[in-house]
Amino acid sequence: MRGSKDIKKVTLKDIAKEAGISVGAVSLILNNKPCRISEENKEMVKKIAKEKNYVVNQMARALVTKKSHTLALLLPDIQNTFFSALAKQLEEDCRENGYYLMFVNTNDSFENDKKLLMSLDARGVDGIFIIQSNESYYYYQQFKNQVEDLHIPYVMVDRSFDNMECSQVRFDNQKGGYEATKYLIEEGHQKIACIYMDDYCGNGTHRMKGYQQAMTEANLPIEENYLIVGDNRYQSGYNAVQSILESGVTAVMICNDMMTLGFLKGLYECGKKVPKDISVVSYDDSLSDYLFEIELTTVAQNVEILARESTEMMMELLADPWSKPKKLILDPKLIIRNSVIRKRDKRG
Amino acid sequence: MRGSKDIKKVTLKDIAKEAGISVGAVSLILNNKPCRISEENKEMVKKIAKEKNYVVNQMARALVTKKSHTLALLLPDIQNTFFSALAKQLEEDCRENGYYLMFVNTNDSFENDKKLLMSLDARGVDGIFIIQSNESYYYYQQFKNQVEDLHIPYVMVDRSFDNMECSQVRFDNQKGGYEATKYLIEEGHQKIACIYMDDYCGNGTHRMKGYQQAMTEANLPIEENYLIVGDNRYQSGYNAVQSILESGVTAVMICNDMMTLGFLKGLYECGKKVPKDISVVSYDDSLSDYLFEIELTTVAQNVEILARESTEMMMELLADPWSKPKKLILDPKLIIRNSVIRKRDKRG
Repeated sequence: MRGSKDIKKVTLKDIAKEAGISVGAVSLILNNKPCRISEENKEMVKKIAKEKNYVVNQMARALVTKKSHTLALLLPDIQNTFFSALAKQLEEDCRENGYYLMFVNTNDSFENDKKLLMSLDARGVDGIFIIQSNESYYYYQQFKNQVEDLHIPYVMVDRSFDNMECSQVRFDNQKGGYEATKYLIEEGHQKIACIYMDDYCGNGTHRMKGYQQAMTEANLPIEENYLIVGDNRYQSGYNAVQSILESGVTAVMICNDMMTLGFLKGLYECGKKVPKDISVVSYDDSLSDYLFEIELTTVAQNVEILARESTEMMMELLADPWSKPKKLILDPKLIIRNSVIRKRDKRG
Repeated sequence: MRGSKDIKKVTLKDIAKEAGISVGAVSLILNNKPCRISEENKEMVKKIAKEKNYVVNQMARALVTKKSHTLALLLPDIQNTFFSALAKQLEEDCRENGYYLMFVNTNDSFENDKKLLMSLDARGVDGIFIIQSNESYYYYQQFKNQVEDLHIPYVMVDRSFDNMECSQVRFDNQKGGYEATKYLIEEGHQKIACIYMDDYCGNGTHRMKGYQQAMTEANLPIEENYLIVGDNRYQSGYNAVQSILESGVTAVMICNDMMTLGFLKGLYECGKKVPKDISVVSYDDSLSDYLFEIELTTVAQNVEILARESTEMMMELLADPWSKPKKLILDPKLIIRNSVIRKRDKRG
């Protein structure tokens, strides 16, 4: 702001007064609407608007046109490398489609999901990409009501409820957990732990169910101390190291990269090595820039595809808000690197 | 959205009709304004509003009250660990002060700075925290005009121009670069390289100037191949490895953590170790969670303090938009860890 001359915004009326033509005519010109006004007058009005630093009041315009060309992304944790990569990609895809993207961070809190969704709805964004907080899995009915009461289109991204009828794009989490564990079993491991977020019916729980499925299929026991609950954050992976080392397992499937990072740090501090002392499979494939010695076998969730499909779905909804909701479940992909060591195969 | 019944938003008029009282009275009740209306009627109106899923149109309200209780943060790179930590902290501090915070990502582009600032201004946020793109350092006059033409308060955070008169909170970058380099010199290093972003008059350049200052003070030569230009991103640090190894230096001062991360990865791939083969000092202190073997000596910029001071400054501006701009330059802090090896001290 530049001193007191800007206290008041320039209005169409101010411009009309200076140009000596009607407010309606100025509005038509500045909104590039067809009108029977001389090119000379058009030029003059645009020049005055520029000189006076006229900014279209998009809030006022949005009230009329109902279009803000802005979308929002509800983000659970801006510091999680998977989500920051996804946010960046989504933003690029939206921009290519002529939309700005704003982010809001919920810190994985149900209360914030509620408040921020209401705020975004009322603030006139055209649509919302929702990555719900993990906490919201515990409030299915309330969360569902809240989302269904939105007045604008939304796409659930990465996280959703199985039985929720809405536009959504996410990965098959049980399949990812299953394939990761199956790979460890095929490499000869029999004592395998799983660090997961117990999020009721969320992605963490589904990945753990995939682990259970693979273990059961192979007739391998899941001892009580094989299942370790974390919260998808660094510290919970770090804290899991002692119990994993005491459990006597030879391998561990960790259900997200942030927990893996904490786990690897704790392991390093105990003087233990991957894969010599313990084999690790992780989930997300967002760490390859950060890790040197350890090349992490991991379940990749392709952020480019997730972002592209979500954006496409949003564009379809914006074109036709009453089209039938689509559900798209993407396949995760196991990427095999050197964080798993081959055990003597008893079946061999 | 829940089928066609929601096509139309519920209005005050709808509620007034159902309650059998005037629209004005309903507005007073739902906006919690003092009014002479019976508690019974108040309860009834609130109940109807709730049943009908009435959402206050904040755009319409903001047009009247000029308050949206939303702030925005212009962010150059959401994947940079320093900025994501800062964004999260700022958001928490704003929330404590009763404000939502939205982020927009500029990808360090001047064009995006311009477009997004205009968009946020027109969208009715109450204020903007600006971390300008690096590119904008090259467009001083244009960027300055753009920012000064904003109709809402703003605080420049972390990045700014020395001679720009506006509210700003940032660190003393030259001092940080100076202290990092001085420490390497005190540890006996004489051949020291510097990887920095050549951002004209930005933070990278100031850090490099601090390096020059320390080298000159100690009468140490700066060979042509000691100065390596990067772009603050991972890949440019990775790419610098060969020239650093060929330059014959024993130490390197790297002007941000993302470049350091890339540099360390490249170094690891060449089979070289820190600090055995080369000593490293970095900048930001955002990597301690990510690094295991290497304990990085680094110039810390305290994100908590930066966020708190920026938020305080914003709150003052919101209370009195015409108060005199304040400039706050914070001290960075050298944190000494084990990524620097002591060289034989010729002065000893």
